[in-house]
Amino acid sequence: MSRIELGYTADYHVHLRQGEMMELVAPTVREGGVSIAYIMPNLTPPLTDIGRVVQYKKDLQNLAPKTTFLMTFYLSKLLTPEVVAKAADEGVIRGIKCYPAGVTTNSQAGVDPNDFSAFYPIFKVMQEKGLVLNLHGEKPSSHDSGEDIHVLNAELKFLPALAKLHKDFPELKIVLEHCTSKAAVDAIHELNKDLKANEHPKVVASLTAHHLFLTIDDWAGNPVNFCKPVAKLPEDRRALLDAAISGKPYFFFGSDSAPHDLTKKSTHVGVCAGVYTQRYAIGYVAEIFDKAGKLDKLKDFVSTFGNSFYCMDESKLICKDKCVLVKKEVEIPDVIAFDDSKLKIAPFKPVEKLSWSTEWI
Amino acid sequence: MSRIELGYTADYHVHLRQGEMMELVAPTVREGGVSIAYIMPNLTPPLTDIGRVVQYKKDLQNLAPKTTFLMTFYLSKLLTPEVVAKAADEGVIRGIKCYPAGVTTNSQAGVDPNDFSAFYPIFKVMQEKGLVLNLHGEKPSSHDSGEDIHVLNAELKFLPALAKLHKDFPELKIVLEHCTSKAAVDAIHELNKDLKANEHPKVVASLTAHHLFLTIDDWAGNPVNFCKPVAKLPEDRRALLDAAISGKPYFFFGSDSAPHDLTKKSTHVGVCAGVYTQRYAIGYVAEIFDKAGKLDKLKDFVSTFGNSFYCMDESKLICKDKCVLVKKEVEIPDVIAFDDSKLKIAPFKPVEKLSWSTEWI
Repeated sequence: MSRIELGYTADYHVHLRQGEMMELVAPTVREGGVSIAYIMPNLTPPLTDIGRVVQYKKDLQNLAPKTTFLMTFYLSKLLTPEVVAKAADEGVIRGIKCYPAGVTTNSQAGVDPNDFSAFYPIFKVMQEKGLVLNLHGEKPSSHDSGEDIHVLNAELKFLPALAKLHKDFPELKIVLEHCTSKAAVDAIHELNKDLKANEHPKVVASLTAHHLFLTIDDWAGNPVNFCKPVAKLPEDRRALLDAAISGKPYFFFGSDSAPHDLTKKSTHVGVCAGVYTQRYAIGYVAEIFDKAGKLDKLKDFVSTFGNSFYCMDESKLICKDKCVLVKKEVEIPDVIAFDDSKLKIAPFKPVEKLSWSTEWI
Repeated sequence: MSRIELGYTADYHVHLRQGEMMELVAPTVREGGVSIAYIMPNLTPPLTDIGRVVQYKKDLQNLAPKTTFLMTFYLSKLLTPEVVAKAADEGVIRGIKCYPAGVTTNSQAGVDPNDFSAFYPIFKVMQEKGLVLNLHGEKPSSHDSGEDIHVLNAELKFLPALAKLHKDFPELKIVLEHCTSKAAVDAIHELNKDLKANEHPKVVASLTAHHLFLTIDDWAGNPVNFCKPVAKLPEDRRALLDAAISGKPYFFFGSDSAPHDLTKKSTHVGVCAGVYTQRYAIGYVAEIFDKAGKLDKLKDFVSTFGNSFYCMDESKLICKDKCVLVKKEVEIPDVIAFDDSKLKIAPFKPVEKLSWSTEWI
C-alpha cells in the first residue's frame, strides 16, 4: 500500500508559542499532515482570559488559514468558574490544561498536584459543559521529602491524583497528556476496564510521536531529545507503542511538539524541555507504525479516536481537506532555518530519513 | 576549624587529554589541590605502548612540574603480557584501564565486558606485578537482547563481571571506577566483608566529586552535568556519600575530571560525556563533606586510602608540598577561558560558590 487516506488528522497537543516563533511554526502544522490542532495555553503570561484566547486564535488562523484550531485555558487561580462557563458557552475553549508548578516550560503559574481541591468548582463546571481537562501528569521533583520524586518516577507518582480526579468527577473528560511510562499505560487500561463497546471513554492518554521512539539513552547527551516528561526505559517505550497500536479508543495522538530556538537547546546549562515534531508529525508516527506492521491502525490513532473523544464536529472544520499518507521518502534537516529570521529549530530525528510523507486531497 | 592539613592529596582518576587541551588543563591539577594524579590512557590513539606513555608523562611533567603523575595502559588486544610485564618492571605504568567498548569518550577500542577471558594472561601478569586494574564498570546499552541495558542499569549489570574477576584473580588489585549506584556500593561492601583490620582491600571503588552531588534531575537538561556513568537516583547519591564518609579504606577519591571544549558540551546532539572538576577538585569534595559534618573523614578519602591502596611511595613524590584546606570562599566561573586559546571549558557547578579553597605548605 503506497497511499493511505487518514481523514481529518488531529494533533491533540500542540505548542505554537508567540511572536516570531509562532509565525514560523503555525504553518508547519499543516506541513506535518495535521488538520486539527489543539493548542496549549502556556504562553507568557499564561492564557487565562477569553479576550486573549480569541485574539491568539485569530493570529494563528491568519498564519494558517486551513488549520482548525481548538483552544485551551491555562488552569490557574486567575480562572473562575464563571469565566470557564462563559468561555465554554461561547465556544472559545475546548478544554483546560493543568500544569503542576515548575515541571516544564512556562509552568511556573501552575498548580500543586498534591491538592486539586481549590479547583473543584472549576472542574464541576467543566464536567457540566463537556470541557476536557488536560493533565501534565508529573509531580515536581523532590529529593528531601522522603518521597524521592525525580524525572524518572514523576509520572508514576502522579497517577494516584489522576485516579482520584476520575473518581471525584466520573463524567469529566480527562486526558493524561504525553504519557511516557508502562505504569501510566497500565493505569489508563485499568481506568477503562469496564468500558463497554458502545461507550466513550472518560479518561484517556495522549501519546507523542517522539516517545514512541525514545528511551533515556536517547536524551542522555542529546538535548534535541530532552523533553518533559522525559523518555523512560525500553520497557516503557514498548508499552507506549503497544498502546498506540492497540486499537483502544483511549490512546490517541497528541504530539506535544514544542519548538525552542536552537540557542535554547544547544547550551551546556538550562536546556529547554521540548521536542519539535510538528513539521513531520504524521510522518514520524507512520514510520513507527509501519515498523510495527500496524499501518492499518494509524487512522484510528491520528484521526478517529481523538476526534471522537473531543466530539469534533465535522461541520466546524475550517478546511475539509483530508490527509493522505504517501510512500515518499523525506530527509529531515539537521536544523530548520526560516527566511528572514534568526530563529532556528532543531527538529526531531535530525538528518534521518522518513519513509512516509503526507498530501492533502 | 578553618585550616585542615590533608597531606599528599591524590586523584586516582584524571583525564588530561592531548595537545592544546592538555596544555591548558595539566596545570589545573595542582590548582585544584591535588598532588598525585593517576592519568587515564584514553587518548587518540589509546596508550598501549611504553614509548608513548613515557613521552606523555614527560609532556605532562613539563606542564606541571610539581605534580606527581602515575600512568596507565589502555586494555586492548594491542597489549601483550610481555609488554605489560616490562612496563611494570620499568615503573612506566601503575595500572591498566579497562573500557567496555563504546560506553564513553574514546572507548571504541575497548573490550567486551561479557567475556574478559582473552585478557586473563594479562591479568595474571598484573596480579604478579602488583599492577592495578581500573574498570569502567558499565555494560554497553542494548535494547534488543532481552536484557534491556540502558544508562541507568549499565553499572548494575556489570557487577557480576566484577565479582567474577575478583574470584578468578583474588590477589589482583581492582578498582571499580567512578561508582554511581547503591548497588555498586553494596557490592564493594560485600566483596570486602571478610576484610580484617590489618588487611589491605583488593577490590575498591573510586568516587568522583560530582557524583556526590548529582542525580538524574541534574543532567536532565544540563549537559554540563552529563557524564558516563550517568548520575542516578537520589537513593544512589545518598549511598555514594555514605560510602565516601564511611571511613572504609575501599572507597576513595578519583575525580574522573574530563574536560571537553565548550562546543562539545553546548550542542543539541552528541554532547560529550564528562564533567570537568579538576580546577576545584578538593574544594568540591570538601563542600559536600562539610555539609555532611564529616570534614574529619576528608583526609582519608582524598589522601590516605588511595595512597595506601596504590602503595604510593612517598620518596617517589615529585614535590613534597602538602595540601591544606582553607576556609576561603571561591566563586566558580560560568566558563573557564584561557589566554591565547580558543578552547573553553564549562566547569562543574558554574557560577556557584564553594566555601573551601586549597593552599600548599
